Formats: sequence, structure tokens, C-alpha cells
Amino acid sequence: MIGIGIDVGGTFVKFLAVDENGKSLKQDQIPTHPEDGPKAFIEKVAAFTLGWQKEFKGRQMAVGMGIAGEADPDNGKIHFAPNLNKWRNVPISEPFEKLTGMSCVLENDANMAGWGAYEWELKRKYKNVLAVTLGTGVGGGIVLDGKMFHGGSGAAGEIGHIRVVPEGELCNCGSRGCVEAYAGNYAICRRTAQALEKAPSKSLLKKICDEEGVSTLALSKAAEMGDPIALKIWEETGTYLARGLASVCLVLNPDAVVLTGGVSRASKYFVKAINDEFGRQTITTPFKHLKLVVAETSNLGSIGAALFGLEWARARKAA
Amino acid sequence: MIGIGIDVGGTFVKFLAVDENGKSLKQDQIPTHPEDGPKAFIEKVAAFTLGWQKEFKGRQMAVGMGIAGEADPDNGKIHFAPNLNKWRNVPISEPFEKLTGMSCVLENDANMAGWGAYEWELKRKYKNVLAVTLGTGVGGGIVLDGKMFHGGSGAAGEIGHIRVVPEGELCNCGSRGCVEAYAGNYAICRRTAQALEKAPSKSLLKKICDEEGVSTLALSKAAEMGDPIALKIWEETGTYLARGLASVCLVLNPDAVVLTGGVSRASKYFVKAINDEFGRQTITTPFKHLKLVVAETSNLGSIGAALFGLEWARARKAA
Repeated sequence: MIGIGIDVGGTFVKFLAVDENGKSLKQDQIPTHPEDGPKAFIEKVAAFTLGWQKEFKGRQMAVGMGIAGEADPDNGKIHFAPNLNKWRNVPISEPFEKLTGMSCVLENDANMAGWGAYEWELKRKYKNVLAVTLGTGVGGGIVLDGKMFHGGSGAAGEIGHIRVVPEGELCNCGSRGCVEAYAGNYAICRRTAQALEKAPSKSLLKKICDEEGVSTLALSKAAEMGDPIALKIWEETGTYLARGLASVCLVLNPDAVVLTGGVSRASKYFVKAINDEFGRQTITTPFKHLKLVVAETSNLGSIGAALFGLEWARARKAA
Repeated sequence: MIGIGIDVGGTFVKFLAVDENGKSLKQDQIPTHPEDGPKAFIEKVAAFTLGWQKEFKGRQMAVGMGIAGEADPDNGKIHFAPNLNKWRNVPISEPFEKLTGMSCVLENDANMAGWGAYEWELKRKYKNVLAVTLGTGVGGGIVLDGKMFHGGSGAAGEIGHIRVVPEGELCNCGSRGCVEAYAGNYAICRRTAQALEKAPSKSLLKKICDEEGVSTLALSKAAEMGDPIALKIWEETGTYLARGLASVCLVLNPDAVVLTGGVSRASKYFVKAINDEFGRQTITTPFKHLKLVVAETSNLGSIGAALFGLEWARARKAA
């Protein structure tokens, strides 16, 4: 059986085909156009997937679809997807299955990254895994006892909105002091811009940002060249992130935490700060037990979706 | 089958017998004397339990034992129990089973309260349940998808040590700003003593505390009589507790949170503050979904231990 991971973002729908071992076979993307409505979206995605089935000479396929928003795998509905034209209560799995004849499971995209961390990155070696998606936002995907965990109403893993500083920086969610308000891409750029205002004119960071604009990439470049302001910003990012993760670890006591997403590519500048903060915890057991991993794979969301699609189809067949 | 709940504290070992529906049949307690060592402890507890079996005319019994500390139900060992003379790596279940012929499962006491909340208080109506034990310390017991959850190394649910105020009040764990440093019994008394220093001489709270000493009971009495300082302290307790619980709910998205333990008896003075803080959250779904319950049963730890003992014995028989 071939697993198809479909990662639905506000702009693009990304497709990935893997074999049962998770080996990538093919990938592609098409525009999402959520403004055309769910019906057009499902028809377009189904047609594209059927096109791949032809290419794979009719081999059986199972689909896992990850969306940025709240989704219920049990009834296959999107509860709410702010990035998809604010769709609410939209059935996805059933109409998709009718059009394609393929098994389809729908999940939140961070949860799919969690499954990718568990099955692909860590090869099922650890049973309790938290994936931390570090992108524009900060999200979490949780696998417990080898099973996807999404809580009572599909909203588990919202670790980006744990508050680490009362009345702290403004978060995209509207609240203040959330982890994301310090470790989200936009928040790191905001602190970088603030630091540049006070930076000496010969600052390396200033020079790089003047040339190419403020970005986490520019910040990494400056850090790589030893710029002290850049290094400090990354260190603070790690500390705030670790304060939020410490709360999660006190609750879940996971075997492994896997950092993934765009910002994780700069992890070498902030992993030490995370470990330092974990080392300062007075309740030591969960932190001694924990393995902190930076994902080697860059598309854990897609690969997790494909593999979870296969897992779901197998479980269904067994039931 | 009769379930025996054994709640092992630093001073007393409490015994409770229940039938398969959880109905209490008998209760008693004996001194713990952890300084006599694990062997003497196990022999004493086994002998006491066998005495009950005689009284119950040889009916089959299954034991659940809850301890304040880290325990591993799978190998039946205490990892570390600070209140039991700092016992480390002590096998309990196996020697107990050898002496009594009864099935015995060992768990952390807050986890047993979690099971009590799930099975007894909520009658298995909710699958994802967090019990919050409000006593000297603040602990958590978690049931997920109808199963006891204790994390990768038996340390899950340490919700009392989530930090809600950076560099805040001193916690018994040695850290600062933990939930427990505001909502633990000792912390509430500390804030009460601080407030009394500034309280006007005609303060009702001052009068009550002068007469009977500072305690959460005195604080409740004053609150009941409308004393504004007492009401404020309880309200703050609820707000700090809710800030920690909000982090937990963002991670776990539980169906129900059950408040239990001595301090929960004063919940009518702080439940509103919890709901208010939950209402201020910008990520709304987990909080709309959540049912907040104050336990009616005062001994959820013992009853949960007894019922989990039965659950464990049944699962073992089925395996």
C-alpha cells in the first residue's frame, strides 16, 4: 500500500507519497484557493490524488490529511480552520473517500508532525513523544503510548499558547506572554527589530539586516559569524521556549521531545539554552528521562500524514 | 471480588475496602513507621490485609496501593518516595503478592485520585480526566482515553510545579513561582499571614486567626462571614491555580477537571476565579469543552486505589 500525505496550508496543498517503510516516492503541490469553498477543494484534491494512483499503476493508496486548524479524525470533519477561509464544520474524509475509494484520515497538521516524529524520526523507539513545530506559530503534536493523542475535542497540544510571562509580549492569538510570542518566527523577528534600534552602528546583525531585511535567516547568519546580539536573541528564544516546554514535560513526562519546523533549523543556536533551562528545574525526573531531539527530516508533517494514513487504514482493516 | 485501596502516607497507612461498584465496605488505618524499612512495612501491611480477608470470609481481594512519590506499576517498584524515609527502588507489589496471594498494583497517590475521579466521581462518563489534588502540595492524576496515564517514567501530572510567576513565591520544591507556591495549603497560609500584617485591627480575619491560628479553615470561616481580605486571598488562589491549569488544558484538552483534596472543600470561594481566568483565555476551544467539577467524595485517592486494584486484576485475568 502507498501512503499519501496531504498537507493543507492556506496557500498550498502539498502531496507526498511514501511506501510502507516511509521512503519518499514522489512529491508535488497545488494552490489551495480556500475561497472557492470546500466542495471545489475536495474535488480538486481528489482528482490530483487519483492522477497519482494512475501513475502508480493502480496500487492501493491510503491518505492522511493534515490541516492547520481543529479537526476530528473520528468523524473526518474540519471543526475550524482559520487559514482556510475560516471553514467551520466541514466534512472532508467522507466526500474524499467517496470520490477516490481510498481510506482518508483527517488530523491537525501539528498532530501529523507528532506522528512523523514518532514513526519516522524516532522509528517507534519511544512511546510518548511530543513534536514541537517551530514556524510562524508554535504548535505541538502528541503521541502517547504509541497512539495519536488529540484530547477531548481535538484541541490538545496547543503548547504555543502556554503563558510564560504574565503581561508579556503580544501573541498572534491576542493574548500576552505566550511561548509563541517569544519563539514564533514573527516574535523572534520582532525582538530582532527591537534590538537593532539599540544596536551599535558597526553591528554585524545590523549590517546583514540592512542588506536583506529582518528574518530568522539573517539572525542565524549573524549568529554564525559570532555576532553577540544575534546569539543573545537566539539564547533568549531557547529559554522562553524551554519554560513552556518545561510545563508540558511536567504534565506529560514524555520520552522524547522533537523540535521541527523552519525555526528548528537554527536550533544549534538555542538548544543549549533549552537544556540549561531544563537543568534548572527542581523536579528533575521528567527532565532526566527526556531525550531532546532536533528533527533531521524537514517535512515531518507530510511524512507523518502519509504514515498515519497507512496506520489508520491498517487499524480500520483490522477492526 | 473486593477492592482494597491502600493509601500510604508518611504517617498513616489508610485502608479502604469497596465492592465492585465502588461501595465502601470498611475502612481503617495503621501507623506507617517508614523508618522500620520496607520489609517490615510490607509484612505489616500484608498481615493487616490478610486480617480483613478473614473478616470478609475469604472472599477474593485485589489491592491498589497509592504512595506519595514516584512509582512504576509495571514493575511494582517505588522509584523514590521522599515522605517514606526517602526509599529508592523498593519492590512492593511482588513481595506483597507473595505474602498475600492477592493481585497488587502500585501507583502514585495523585494518579489513584485521578482514577477515583474518572471511575467513581464521574462514573466513566468522560474519557479524558484530570484530577487536581489540593492539599499541602498540589498534584495531578491523569486518565486519558479511559486509561491511567503516568508518562514515560511515572512522573506525569506534576502540575503543581508549573511556573506561573517568574521569580515568584518560594515553593516547597525549592523553585519559585510554581502553582503550588500559591495554591498549596502552606502557600495560602503564608499569604494569609502576610495579609494579616497589613490588616486593620478590626479585621474579622485577624480576629479569627488570633483565636485559632492561621489556617485555610480560619480563612474559610472569615470568607464565609464576608471578610474582604479572606475573600481576596481565596480569589487570588483560584486565579493562580487557573493559570497553571490553563497550561495543562492547552496541552491535554481534557473532558473534565476534578478538584479534590482538603483545600477543595473551600472551592466555593475560588471556583469563580478559576472560571473567570479560563474565560479570559484566547484559545477558547479547550475551555468551552471542559467540565470543571469539585469532587463530592472526600477520599478519591483511597477509593481510586481500590477501584484501580480491581481494574488491574481484571485486566491481568483477561491478558
